[in-house]
Amino acid sequence: MPANQPVTACVIIIGNEVLSGRTTDANLAYLGKGLNDLGIRLMEARIVRDDEDAIVDAVDACRGAFDYVFTTGGIGPTHDDITAACIAKAFGVRLERNAEAMALLARQYTPEEFNEARRKMADIPEGATLLENPVSKAPGFRIGNVFVLPGVPIIMRAMFEGFRHRLVGGEPWLSRSVVAFTTEGSVASGLAAVQEKHPRVEIGSYPFLRSGRLGVNLVLRAPDRAALDAATDAVKSLITDMGVEAIEETEVPAC
Amino acid sequence: MPANQPVTACVIIIGNEVLSGRTTDANLAYLGKGLNDLGIRLMEARIVRDDEDAIVDAVDACRGAFDYVFTTGGIGPTHDDITAACIAKAFGVRLERNAEAMALLARQYTPEEFNEARRKMADIPEGATLLENPVSKAPGFRIGNVFVLPGVPIIMRAMFEGFRHRLVGGEPWLSRSVVAFTTEGSVASGLAAVQEKHPRVEIGSYPFLRSGRLGVNLVLRAPDRAALDAATDAVKSLITDMGVEAIEETEVPAC
Repeated sequence: MPANQPVTACVIIIGNEVLSGRTTDANLAYLGKGLNDLGIRLMEARIVRDDEDAIVDAVDACRGAFDYVFTTGGIGPTHDDITAACIAKAFGVRLERNAEAMALLARQYTPEEFNEARRKMADIPEGATLLENPVSKAPGFRIGNVFVLPGVPIIMRAMFEGFRHRLVGGEPWLSRSVVAFTTEGSVASGLAAVQEKHPRVEIGSYPFLRSGRLGVNLVLRAPDRAALDAATDAVKSLITDMGVEAIEETEVPAC
Repeated sequence: MPANQPVTACVIIIGNEVLSGRTTDANLAYLGKGLNDLGIRLMEARIVRDDEDAIVDAVDACRGAFDYVFTTGGIGPTHDDITAACIAKAFGVRLERNAEAMALLARQYTPEEFNEARRKMADIPEGATLLENPVSKAPGFRIGNVFVLPGVPIIMRAMFEGFRHRLVGGEPWLSRSVVAFTTEGSVASGLAAVQEKHPRVEIGSYPFLRSGRLGVNLVLRAPDRAALDAATDAVKSLITDMGVEAIEETEVPAC
């Protein structure tokens, strides 16, 4: 991977319940932060229905466009869990009852409990590698550059923590945040000038309303600490020159 | 629109801050519920970076695939607000300083405040129709089947409430939810049989862990109340026949 070519990722969230508004996704922010720590930039996310065509199309589009793809959701024992079959279809391989996954699941259940629905959780695309699930044992898997994870946040997180050391990233991006109780319209032209002068730093402006007061959160991100420091100083000067306090938030290494 | 052809929508969330995990999106669930009330099914959502190619590609892919597209984010006065320019590019039209938008903004600011950055918020693709912003005046707009909304939730919601009566939907889907403290693996085969017998009802199974107890939330959705009632009764019988209490949650019309 060339040094200045970022390592990229995409997340595909599978589940009607997120689109209907019944469930709020809790995995995207976790993956975005976790990947950033590894120097992998989350470039896009898609939320798709529990529908074969929708899942296959999204996986096919994303696995060619990004270095890593992570899917969440749809790998349980019920009829609406169709992710493994869709991934097999996207890769053009057979879905097979995986012996290693069967052994893991067989230890988790009594023979009576280990019914056909639970055995279905051992159906994994041919050629995939299992990803350990330390919580409820039913494994995720990796095939090519696609990592297939469960949707339940505590299980997704535990699984991600188990394989993250195997992901190959680039330089992690550092970030700074400068909060000012002013408006975007007042700061915009000066901020554009700072952005132009510091092209290696990504500067974002996010307005907010806090206890009835308008403010902006100016977020600076870069892999290079010196460049980030210089741009942050320039943003703080811009704000204080306007006669407004520039409140620098503590740097959060994770995002 | 044929009666049994659903009216579909896609949401495109524009903003690096959602992908970095710094901001959690608060618009998707609102739009998903609001559209469902109107009989419009949210089929997909994409979260893309503040990047011209990413925005143009997503808009182009989605406006052909769905009846309605809603974008959120990137329409403010700062350098990272590039949505209007990207939409113009996607539609192959000019971005022009819209006279109506200029008049709205001019009333909002003193002549001194009304600087070039704020005037930029009046740059709207040629042929677009403005969408009223009752909170901070800077308008959104509609062009073709694409509705361009701000990212700040209180403003996005107020704008959506202002034009929602103009959207043409189909039959709103109703939903029921049956909660049971059992496992997905125990209920899966019976649930698949219910799904097969009630193909017009969409049945989803969502496991949860609440105060250390495993449970499943079985969500049934359909436009037809009688079909929904019959499938819900079948699910409840399935659960109670297992010797487990079936707790029906109050129907929430909005999702």
